[in-house]
Amino acid sequence: MSEHTTPLNAAVIGAGYWGPNLARNFATAPDWRLAAVCDLNRERAATVAHASGGVDVETSVADVLAREDVDAVAIATPARTHHPIAMAALRAGKHVVVEKPLADTSERASEMVELAERTGRVLMTDHTYCYTPAVQKISELVAEDALGEILFVDSVRINLGLVQPDVDVLWDLAPHDLSILDAVLPGGLRPVGVAAHGADPLGAGKACVAYLSLPLENGAMAHVHVNWMSPTKIRQMVIGGSRRTLVWDDLNPQQRLSVYDRGVDLERQQATGDERTAATVSYRLGDTWSPALPEREALGLMVAEFAASIREARAPRTDGAAGCRVLGVLEAASASLAANGLLTGVGGVDKDMEVVA
Amino acid sequence: MSEHTTPLNAAVIGAGYWGPNLARNFATAPDWRLAAVCDLNRERAATVAHASGGVDVETSVADVLAREDVDAVAIATPARTHHPIAMAALRAGKHVVVEKPLADTSERASEMVELAERTGRVLMTDHTYCYTPAVQKISELVAEDALGEILFVDSVRINLGLVQPDVDVLWDLAPHDLSILDAVLPGGLRPVGVAAHGADPLGAGKACVAYLSLPLENGAMAHVHVNWMSPTKIRQMVIGGSRRTLVWDDLNPQQRLSVYDRGVDLERQQATGDERTAATVSYRLGDTWSPALPEREALGLMVAEFAASIREARAPRTDGAAGCRVLGVLEAASASLAANGLLTGVGGVDKDMEVVA
Amino acid sequence: MSEHTTPLNAAVIGAGYWGPNLARNFATAPDWRLAAVCDLNRERAATVAHASGGVDVETSVADVLAREDVDAVAIATPARTHHPIAMAALRAGKHVVVEKPLADTSERASEMVELAERTGRVLMTDHTYCYTPAVQKISELVAEDALGEILFVDSVRINLGLVQPDVDVLWDLAPHDLSILDAVLPGGLRPVGVAAHGADPLGAGKACVAYLSLPLENGAMAHVHVNWMSPTKIRQMVIGGSRRTLVWDDLNPQQRLSVYDRGVDLERQQATGDERTAATVSYRLGDTWSPALPEREALGLMVAEFAASIREARAPRTDGAAGCRVLGVLEAASASLAANGLLTGVGGVDKDMEVVA
Amino acid sequence: MSEHTTPLNAAVIGAGYWGPNLARNFATAPDWRLAAVCDLNRERAATVAHASGGVDVETSVADVLAREDVDAVAIATPARTHHPIAMAALRAGKHVVVEKPLADTSERASEMVELAERTGRVLMTDHTYCYTPAVQKISELVAEDALGEILFVDSVRINLGLVQPDVDVLWDLAPHDLSILDAVLPGGLRPVGVAAHGADPLGAGKACVAYLSLPLENGAMAHVHVNWMSPTKIRQMVIGGSRRTLVWDDLNPQQRLSVYDRGVDLERQQATGDERTAATVSYRLGDTWSPALPEREALGLMVAEFAASIREARAPRTDGAAGCRVLGVLEAASASLAANGLLTGVGGVDKDMEVVA
Repeated sequence: MSEHTTPLNAAVIGAGYWGPNLARNFATAPDWRLAAVCDLNRERAATVAHASGGVDVETSVADVLAREDVDAVAIATPARTHHPIAMAALRAGKHVVVEKPLADTSERASEMVELAERTGRVLMTDHTYCYTPAVQKISELVAEDALGEILFVDSVRINLGLVQPDVDVLWDLAPHDLSILDAVLPGGLRPVGVAAHGADPLGAGKACVAYLSLPLENGAMAHVHVNWMSPTKIRQMVIGGSRRTLVWDDLNPQQRLSVYDRGVDLERQQATGDERTAATVSYRLGDTWSPALPEREALGLMVAEFAASIREARAPRTDGAAGCRVLGVLEAASASLAANGLLTGVGGVDKDMEVVA
Repeated sequence: MSEHTTPLNAAVIGAGYWGPNLARNFATAPDWRLAAVCDLNRERAATVAHASGGVDVETSVADVLAREDVDAVAIATPARTHHPIAMAALRAGKHVVVEKPLADTSERASEMVELAERTGRVLMTDHTYCYTPAVQKISELVAEDALGEILFVDSVRINLGLVQPDVDVLWDLAPHDLSILDAVLPGGLRPVGVAAHGADPLGAGKACVAYLSLPLENGAMAHVHVNWMSPTKIRQMVIGGSRRTLVWDDLNPQQRLSVYDRGVDLERQQATGDERTAATVSYRLGDTWSPALPEREALGLMVAEFAASIREARAPRTDGAAGCRVLGVLEAASASLAANGLLTGVGGVDKDMEVVA
Repeated sequence: MSEHTTPLNAAVIGAGYWGPNLARNFATAPDWRLAAVCDLNRERAATVAHASGGVDVETSVADVLAREDVDAVAIATPARTHHPIAMAALRAGKHVVVEKPLADTSERASEMVELAERTGRVLMTDHTYCYTPAVQKISELVAEDALGEILFVDSVRINLGLVQPDVDVLWDLAPHDLSILDAVLPGGLRPVGVAAHGADPLGAGKACVAYLSLPLENGAMAHVHVNWMSPTKIRQMVIGGSRRTLVWDDLNPQQRLSVYDRGVDLERQQATGDERTAATVSYRLGDTWSPALPEREALGLMVAEFAASIREARAPRTDGAAGCRVLGVLEAASASLAANGLLTGVGGVDKDMEVVA
Repeated sequence: MSEHTTPLNAAVIGAGYWGPNLARNFATAPDWRLAAVCDLNRERAATVAHASGGVDVETSVADVLAREDVDAVAIATPARTHHPIAMAALRAGKHVVVEKPLADTSERASEMVELAERTGRVLMTDHTYCYTPAVQKISELVAEDALGEILFVDSVRINLGLVQPDVDVLWDLAPHDLSILDAVLPGGLRPVGVAAHGADPLGAGKACVAYLSLPLENGAMAHVHVNWMSPTKIRQMVIGGSRRTLVWDDLNPQQRLSVYDRGVDLERQQATGDERTAATVSYRLGDTWSPALPEREALGLMVAEFAASIREARAPRTDGAAGCRVLGVLEAASASLAANGLLTGVGGVDKDMEVVA
């Protein structure tokens, strides 16, 4: 932000689990002034407003949206209320960032994207993970073509987790993997189809372990493994490229990212006919490199990107379309899970839609 | 073996890659006398025979099978020749152990199992991995009910591997996982179906990464991930049970097996209705235990089991039926792979067949 | 604490780095009521008092000690002021807990111990690390003789650390290792002597890497390695016993403690003459066991132990004498460091002194 | 070796533990022709000679040394016989490589070095570890100044080891660390003194754990920790430099070497006075880099270096002087151990002596 720029004014709607984190980051960001915190429960709103430096307390969304000193709202209410609040906010001319999931269905999410487009307002999905230093670095490396063409992605997110009352393991954990894939894959997450296999061996009434196969357009494959029953905790993503392969081990703070200059030599392989492929395969066994990562809070970068996208009248990195794509894949995954893993197309996503602010 | 027992006499057929290992183990086992090594290439046979203490050299399978001093043969020839040689050997009254895969198709493998049954001879599959100290220990723990009911198995076998000229990554690597599953799962590997997803992003003409989902009969799920393109090498299997969960990390010689007394509490969960499940879930966070493993060569235990099964007129641990089950799953996996991951039944396996010697 | 027991009243003196942590724990402990927070800087005291539930603010130590509603004080002021404040507090009849180091010299620390003894008040050193679940468990295992006789202890505490303006790496990091050794070794830390070797290759004017050798009375040896210049962070202590050996890897939250039933067989070795020792050495290669550790805040256990020792009129676990022993070893280490690593006796510690409350 | 160069002729003296490895490498090296294997025990010599391609069998050292077709001998006999055999060989005009230790005392080793110098023959110490790809790479990095000035070296070599009948843990394990230090440190291992602390808590009659502190000339420090009683196996060396720090973890085949561009900023620190040092310290938190290492047998590189040094009439990398330096440090360490860790000078080493061939 230029030093001469006036801060934008934000209100946070919803003061439950995630709202306080949003409020704290809007309150301390140089790009923003936090104008108000809103919750149906006045006491909850007041606590958060106090902790954020004594900003206004609101208990009505309509009142917030009527305020002329509010440029943008951050919505952290229950998922089924994201759509009505965001639609009202966009109609009131506010820019909107929504806690994930963007909406309770990809269809309603698409409506939000369309309205944002018509009103020329920014609609952003708070895919917080995408603003961690690790994912930012991965995105840079992919953009610089350091990995080459992406051949496969394998993501594992398992631990001994809380069996959630309202969602299965797919909807609980996979949104993280999918939002990261959407941020990292060139062109976003647009799989050819989705196949999901799961099991409920505990009799919990929902899948407690699940595997997602996501064939991609260039013959590549992404795969996600989520599990609530693993005694060990693993947060690992491998991104295999034609040049190099990256391993992200999020639980190893001393070496979160490793870039391996190792692999099967693609150039020589592509030059040969199928029949003689094996004879001309070669292997690279090069160095490994682990980039240093800055220590930064992801949510701080998220609110900075929200401000920048508003000022520059452009789509933010994790825009509404990103939120739609993730929801569309999750819906297809649930449909596949119910159909014994049948490869299922991703509907409800207009692949060309974009936020134009 | 009793000290007074006369050793059995074995001949090894095939002196290529695996035959020398078999010959060395038969030559040094107290239960066995190695009578001959046979290969079409006399020089190759002679080298192996010499290294095994100067046993007879043969170049004709028929001559080997005609020898009265040969009780059993070990077949380590190319896969497509396993069936004719094994059938001839069984007809000649020999006991037979076959390098994996048991045959080139599960149908031919079944014929071998049936003939062994009719002739009252032992037919064994050399699933070597099943005789490692780690798998032996896992089998014991499962048999003692130390893990409880098996809820999920997740197996990962990835590394920067040789792209094989004749087989895809499934047939190259997954036989290990499947034979181990067959040895470990009570009742053997009898999945409800098989779904396989793979990709060939290198354009190698065959899958270089593949994922197998194997729903099991009690609502459990086994899953296998094999990959030739991974820059890091992982050999890990997690076996989640209702009592405890076991992690086998084969590349950590200092702690190969870890048994976690951690998990979701099944007892309380089963006692409640579906609606209130989440409220009554509880977690155990108990100790971890890593059993010491003896240092023993797997192949030595394999030939000892072969001898014991012959003497005791019983099926060996990795009998012909085990070889059939593994082949059946691999064939179903290939069919599923060709059908975009469609859940595919395992045919060609008579689930009740057993070797009765 | 019995439900009927009246809480004790505490005041925290010093509201800088550590005081707020003490205040928070006294404020929330069932055994305690926090009466006041005292700091020369009123604003600092007020901030901490507010965050601790609105307790009294004091700016004079004399005023705090004059209060009849204060049973005990926790001192978290600069090290050179520990002695005068603690002496005054003991004379005023208060029980005292002091942030480490207990005093700036072991001589002054001894005076504090003697005064506490004469006045019948509890004097405790806040060796916080000793109240972590890991150290508590290690102490239990040693007390139960699970490890047998302790043969060696090797402690490594290295990372890329802040070069401190006022202390060298020994005084910065080794107090942790030494206080843990004091808590774990039967009879406390009473080495035969201390040899310290260090280096200042940066020209920082003080040792930035140091090694402490501490021969113990039974022929055993403890060793501590501290280093500010290591690019990797290690926090590891190995405690070798005649029965079992424990490894504490504090940076591995999934397996902090490992108890190895592996070692050289002592029984057989002791039974033989020196000349033939090697011939009769045997090795155990048993299982490894990793006890589960509860998740508890160390400081909460520390203030509970402070209360219990007052109520039961006994010495706390980390009493004044423990603080003296650690200081005595540090002083001997500094003397050794200045004398090229000469083995130096630990003076200034009356080994039989104990707090009798 | 140039393709036109005639191979040199070698004889291996001693066919016990290490001799067969030497014989195999001389027999297969392009630079060498293995002429004979010599052992007092004819059968042992014959076995090794046969396995090395049928070379001559000798049972008398004098006969070997009298052969005109022998340019060089490799001595792998018991340590106390190294000196007489090597002296005789040098007098007979042979080049000599000696299994470590070079001799049983540094004084006798010095005599060997002097005689080699007088006779213009190469005298090499077989410090095999120095020819591993890891140590070769470390030496290159130090030579290229990639690490900057060496500030500290910390080496750990511990495991559950065989209590040796004739040597303590220092003489059993530390020669590896010391020979590596000699190869890696610019100018070789020339510590200002040696302090050794050890313990024998098993009553084995010799130290089973020991710590060596080696202050170096530029204010730096090397330290070696060897232990026979550790349940876990560690082989790790950290080399801290003013530019970068290298960690060698020999038991991690996937990432043996890691070079950390992290550390305390030396430039700024040196520019300031002692009093204000802390204020101007800064930290680098850069990338980590793990160089790929070729897969090569160390002994093959050792015999190649032996040949090259003979042809080029220069000292080999691990020359006789290197062997002397290592022996001198070990002797000083033993003296220090017997004197309670007193810092002991390294005698018996003429620091300027060099092999001039």
